[in-house]
Amino acid sequence: MFIYPRLYNKLKRGPQVILPKDIGMILSHSGIDKNSICVDAGTGSGWLTISLARLCKHVYSYDLREDFIAIAEKNREMLALDNITFTKGDVFKKIKETNVDLVTLDMPSSEKALKNAKKALKSGGTVVGYLPHTEQVKRFALKAQSLGFIDIYTVETIVRDLLVRKEGVRPTNTGIWHTAYLVFARKP
Amino acid sequence: MFIYPRLYNKLKRGPQVILPKDIGMILSHSGIDKNSICVDAGTGSGWLTISLARLCKHVYSYDLREDFIAIAEKNREMLALDNITFTKGDVFKKIKETNVDLVTLDMPSSEKALKNAKKALKSGGTVVGYLPHTEQVKRFALKAQSLGFIDIYTVETIVRDLLVRKEGVRPTNTGIWHTAYLVFARKP
Amino acid sequence: MFIYPRLYNKLKRGPQVILPKDIGMILSHSGIDKNSICVDAGTGSGWLTISLARLCKHVYSYDLREDFIAIAEKNREMLALDNITFTKGDVFKKIKETNVDLVTLDMPSSEKALKNAKKALKSGGTVVGYLPHTEQVKRFALKAQSLGFIDIYTVETIVRDLLVRKEGVRPTNTGIWHTAYLVFARKP
Amino acid sequence: MFIYPRLYNKLKRGPQVILPKDIGMILSHSGIDKNSICVDAGTGSGWLTISLARLCKHVYSYDLREDFIAIAEKNREMLALDNITFTKGDVFKKIKETNVDLVTLDMPSSEKALKNAKKALKSGGTVVGYLPHTEQVKRFALKAQSLGFIDIYTVETIVRDLLVRKEGVRPTNTGIWHTAYLVFARKP
Repeated sequence: MFIYPRLYNKLKRGPQVILPKDIGMILSHSGIDKNSICVDAGTGSGWLTISLARLCKHVYSYDLREDFIAIAEKNREMLALDNITFTKGDVFKKIKETNVDLVTLDMPSSEKALKNAKKALKSGGTVVGYLPHTEQVKRFALKAQSLGFIDIYTVETIVRDLLVRKEGVRPTNTGIWHTAYLVFARKP
Repeated sequence: MFIYPRLYNKLKRGPQVILPKDIGMILSHSGIDKNSICVDAGTGSGWLTISLARLCKHVYSYDLREDFIAIAEKNREMLALDNITFTKGDVFKKIKETNVDLVTLDMPSSEKALKNAKKALKSGGTVVGYLPHTEQVKRFALKAQSLGFIDIYTVETIVRDLLVRKEGVRPTNTGIWHTAYLVFARKP
Repeated sequence: MFIYPRLYNKLKRGPQVILPKDIGMILSHSGIDKNSICVDAGTGSGWLTISLARLCKHVYSYDLREDFIAIAEKNREMLALDNITFTKGDVFKKIKETNVDLVTLDMPSSEKALKNAKKALKSGGTVVGYLPHTEQVKRFALKAQSLGFIDIYTVETIVRDLLVRKEGVRPTNTGIWHTAYLVFARKP
Repeated sequence: MFIYPRLYNKLKRGPQVILPKDIGMILSHSGIDKNSICVDAGTGSGWLTISLARLCKHVYSYDLREDFIAIAEKNREMLALDNITFTKGDVFKKIKETNVDLVTLDMPSSEKALKNAKKALKSGGTVVGYLPHTEQVKRFALKAQSLGFIDIYTVETIVRDLLVRKEGVRPTNTGIWHTAYLVFARKP
């Protein structure tokens, strides 16, 4: 099944990772480019942090747990990336950076980080919540709305593998249905 | 509906464009980064060319039609990108560049460009075919196999919008089902 | 698009109807047969009532609104069905029938009818809720659980049209994504 | 996962069965009712034969293999159905019945049975092909067209399970993506 491209096969995996299908949506829908500064919280195994760092200028990556940061740091070393700053810290309390282009939030109750995310973002910048449950999505989207974010959209990305053979082209019988919803919102 | 992010709303649109959902999959599954050199054919309205140029080092973009290149050139100017080279030319006959990281093919009978794509790619580089029909997918994937490409995968990316409200969270009633299949293949 | 089979094209349509894709799931997953007695509420335009009546022994169909029953009655006449009893009545207050095989509920706050549905059902009988929103689904499924229903399942049925031609087989570009969730529960 | 309703759990299973999601579509889209006569080929484990027999007047079920018919016969006995006639026979050569309402075809190269299916059907009757591959679908649909069938439609039915809990409503992570396409066609 086409879940992990070659690059990701090499990476260490501790806590649950964000899959390339969702990373791709974040890349193409957030509007980031080579000059973008990103904040990613929580770091987890660092897959999203690393994916952003490979394409953007700098990524500031926050997690509460040092053991997760240690896994992500190993992955950073393996790919020899020099534009990631890991911070053990709580984005519910503070995001140090300002004028950033993108804030990605993957943690329980991530709506509690929206206020700080808004402070960190430049005008026109995007926050993205990665949220498995519909209740989380609702809390996040409504909170974003009440904080004055605009262009709020929620999507679910489904990737189907097609089995291609000389005779017998068809979708595969089983597959991944759901990882998480992505909620996008923009600072006016 | 969440189809065109803000950036794309500004762009001119001539021939059929590749949507951000498919661009995202190409970005996250091809393994490209800031140092990557890409070849994109055909240029069309230039959305994929521009998306790649915003994140990669340089994009060489080919089309048979000058009027399409003119539209794409206007879009390039609007975003002030200086790392795109447009060429009026036929990739079935020749791709000048070598040692590139990614070749993207969106044109009828694109399997006929696979031989030149393989010559242009560096070892480990990726070719991606954007193909609406199952018959095209079969021709492309089988040709890639016969030319010695590896890690050949075909996927369809479906993005569902979730309607989020204080009461009444549900998927939207209608949506885009299908744009095209993406066939990924890697040069050994 | 393949939404309404030939039969349904003839029927009158007042309030929002249940589509054949969802009717099919109710038919095949509820376990009803030619000897089954069904209760359907609310009647609406009568499509589900009629679909059940064409295959089962008798259908008792409830609605609060006489104008809806009038539409459904016209549809019944058109198909010359003699095994439907329409009742203007409130299933939140009372379902007269007992020992029935299936109760289908399509109305706001349908979880309020679950207690009466359970009384009406025979042991092993099935109740099905047709519910557009995730919040409704949660209230319905949790209420069913608290009332002692078993085998509680929630599904969403998605039907994709495939465009089939001499050259160019592919899914259609757009389609119906979501009508409603179906919650199935069985009386022990 | 919600694949086999209670009824089907009891049934014996030899060759690959048709799942209730696809049976439901056949029931609701073919327009059959209690008075309908159906032909089902091949019998296989008899799940579709039995599902039809529980709701229709009579089902004539054909298979080339006696061991499959033996399994289906056991399933028939278990449910005490008296309206099924099993025949060891080749529907490519002959379908004895005439004036039937529905012919269902689940076998390799089933387009070869379309001519006999058309003879067997009454005017307005429906033939349904159950076909896993896109190439089979194309052969079946184009053959049906060339034989003068009308209202030819191909669909794929996808059923997603929703996980419903006090907190954490979301689609299940994995699921069944594809069983087969259904091609519907009607005799004018």
